[in-house]
Amino acid sequence: MNDFVFYNPVKIVFGGGKVNQAGEEAKNLGSRCLIVTGKGSAKRSGLLDRCANHLKEKNISCTILSGVQPNPRIEKVYEGIKTAKDNRVDFILAIGGGSVIDTAKAIAAGFYYEGDAWDFYTMKSKVEKALPIMVVLTVAATGSEMNSISVIQNDLTKLKIRAQGYPLFPKVSILDPELTKSLPKDYTAYASVDIISHVIEGYFTSEDNNTPIQDGFTEAIIKTVIRDTFKLMKDLNDIEARANIMWASSLALNGITTSGIGKFKFENHLIEHSLSAFHDVPHGAGLSIVIPAWMKENKNNLKHKFEKFAKNVFNKETADDGIEMLEKFFKEINAPTSLSYYNITNFDELIDNIMECAPSRGLVLTRDYIERILDKCR
Amino acid sequence: MNDFVFYNPVKIVFGGGKVNQAGEEAKNLGSRCLIVTGKGSAKRSGLLDRCANHLKEKNISCTILSGVQPNPRIEKVYEGIKTAKDNRVDFILAIGGGSVIDTAKAIAAGFYYEGDAWDFYTMKSKVEKALPIMVVLTVAATGSEMNSISVIQNDLTKLKIRAQGYPLFPKVSILDPELTKSLPKDYTAYASVDIISHVIEGYFTSEDNNTPIQDGFTEAIIKTVIRDTFKLMKDLNDIEARANIMWASSLALNGITTSGIGKFKFENHLIEHSLSAFHDVPHGAGLSIVIPAWMKENKNNLKHKFEKFAKNVFNKETADDGIEMLEKFFKEINAPTSLSYYNITNFDELIDNIMECAPSRGLVLTRDYIERILDKCR
Repeated sequence: MNDFVFYNPVKIVFGGGKVNQAGEEAKNLGSRCLIVTGKGSAKRSGLLDRCANHLKEKNISCTILSGVQPNPRIEKVYEGIKTAKDNRVDFILAIGGGSVIDTAKAIAAGFYYEGDAWDFYTMKSKVEKALPIMVVLTVAATGSEMNSISVIQNDLTKLKIRAQGYPLFPKVSILDPELTKSLPKDYTAYASVDIISHVIEGYFTSEDNNTPIQDGFTEAIIKTVIRDTFKLMKDLNDIEARANIMWASSLALNGITTSGIGKFKFENHLIEHSLSAFHDVPHGAGLSIVIPAWMKENKNNLKHKFEKFAKNVFNKETADDGIEMLEKFFKEINAPTSLSYYNITNFDELIDNIMECAPSRGLVLTRDYIERILDKCR
Repeated sequence: MNDFVFYNPVKIVFGGGKVNQAGEEAKNLGSRCLIVTGKGSAKRSGLLDRCANHLKEKNISCTILSGVQPNPRIEKVYEGIKTAKDNRVDFILAIGGGSVIDTAKAIAAGFYYEGDAWDFYTMKSKVEKALPIMVVLTVAATGSEMNSISVIQNDLTKLKIRAQGYPLFPKVSILDPELTKSLPKDYTAYASVDIISHVIEGYFTSEDNNTPIQDGFTEAIIKTVIRDTFKLMKDLNDIEARANIMWASSLALNGITTSGIGKFKFENHLIEHSLSAFHDVPHGAGLSIVIPAWMKENKNNLKHKFEKFAKNVFNKETADDGIEMLEKFFKEINAPTSLSYYNITNFDELIDNIMECAPSRGLVLTRDYIERILDKCR
């Protein structure tokens, strides 16, 4: 096992109807709240009003910043920082999925920062301080509800990159599986791909890092997500499946499965983030295209690990079998597995962008390597 | 899945040689430290002096309370509270295993409490505040380094019972596998039994609680502990095995495997604590006696879960096979599996004690049930 630091102080409040505790949890964080939310579904479903009312019952005033879009943009962060400052808020409540939470985190850090909040992403500056963040999760996918990562996109520079820092951990995240029932079928599938991707990035770090516990945890998450996504494809209201997948989302990227595995590369995310930045592909849909290709490219370097994956997740023997089974799963849940799905044929600017973003993840990659993976995505 | 709250803010610093960061980690906690340690091994190995020196380099003064014994007693807690007050310490550093950490937690809470610290254990009072606690772990077994539980024994009342509360979470725990290499063979075996016991208590909560992730995590921990304990029985210095078992210890009782499984009973621990209180049996050795008997008594109520256990942990088919394999493992590592090992034949006062302690765990049990389990321990 490799050395590691594990630290994750997020309080998770999990269960059906737990959204009704929003006021109770929020009252410890302050009396003036900025609610950050998406393009309208929380408003339409009544969730936004429910949360605002719970807060008001605790004498917390709310200002609302809506309109955060998937692949969240830095412009919305700037708008949020201004709103937060104008209203002298004490904390931020994110109601939504990863894009909303990541935007809330960026605003929380930018609130105390004199410079440009984008500096946290370009690594020009570190997050030293942030407003307290609370989450009411409506899309279980990115794991942002239980980690200190924020991914934001800058359309000017075509960069979709990440910032990280302890102050970005939410103080409390309410995980109410009932709230995820309204997620449509295609995005439910993409969310599951995203969850699986997070543990896969760590699992295939090395041939044998002697981390049987971490590997076992990863296999349990993947098997559960596959089993329960199939259930959801038949019945989007299957609340037990929604619950398992919601908790899987948080566990997949909260540090538990990756502690001790050494420095992992996150190459699938590197490539997918460029896809999203250029073509506004849903993150999970980009990942279901990239992952099988990445696996085919890397299967010979990590032969034993791929065989272990095939055996323990799918009860199959060979590396190829394991990859084939995962790709088959993606296809069966209608997650795209080819760039042709989005009519993406020109790779040059994509490769330029990937090469530009790689150093921010500490990755040294060749153009050839990226090109070979993208070729396998055709 | 059942509703749950998960919260665990302990910072884990893991790796060989990490004990050298003791001063760096401690400096955030204050400038006056009470070091709590055991009966002499930390002194003899030089670890106590090493830690004290690291703290002194950061201008932290140290007072030492040594002599904490296995199955730690409340008298030592009283002594520690007085020493902590006399020296107006800012925080406590526990150097040792579960007994030392649990004593440190009791002192930390008692420091701010006007009444008798035993009140926290009899549930007469709640832990509202405690001194910050830091841990340098030398025995990986109880998981106390990453939870908010303290178990203390009172020889006057013959009660070995627990207190729990958020202020009892250590701020930071240094997990340096090198420090566990000196643990002798018998206690290494008992420690592994203890780790397995913690996940088993949760796993066998119900027939089917639809918690495939939690069950998978548990199975991964048990399989790893079995594999790597066999390695240690051949070579106590196998550092990779020491590392895996150390991390298993923390994960087994930090809330991750039990979140969502519902209220679990901890009956094996209830029974074993009475064994320890009356006969000063090492905790892990008591558990290797109780667990197979408890399993045999309960296998028919939880048939499918026992079959799942047999299948996923041992690749066997029947409930009996799974129990037999676990008992065989205990025997092969020379952990006792019969009360005759300690010449315990009189059960009456033991059963009285178990019945007296049960309510503090919210358990309603019959004398008959306890007697049947103890009979199976003969």
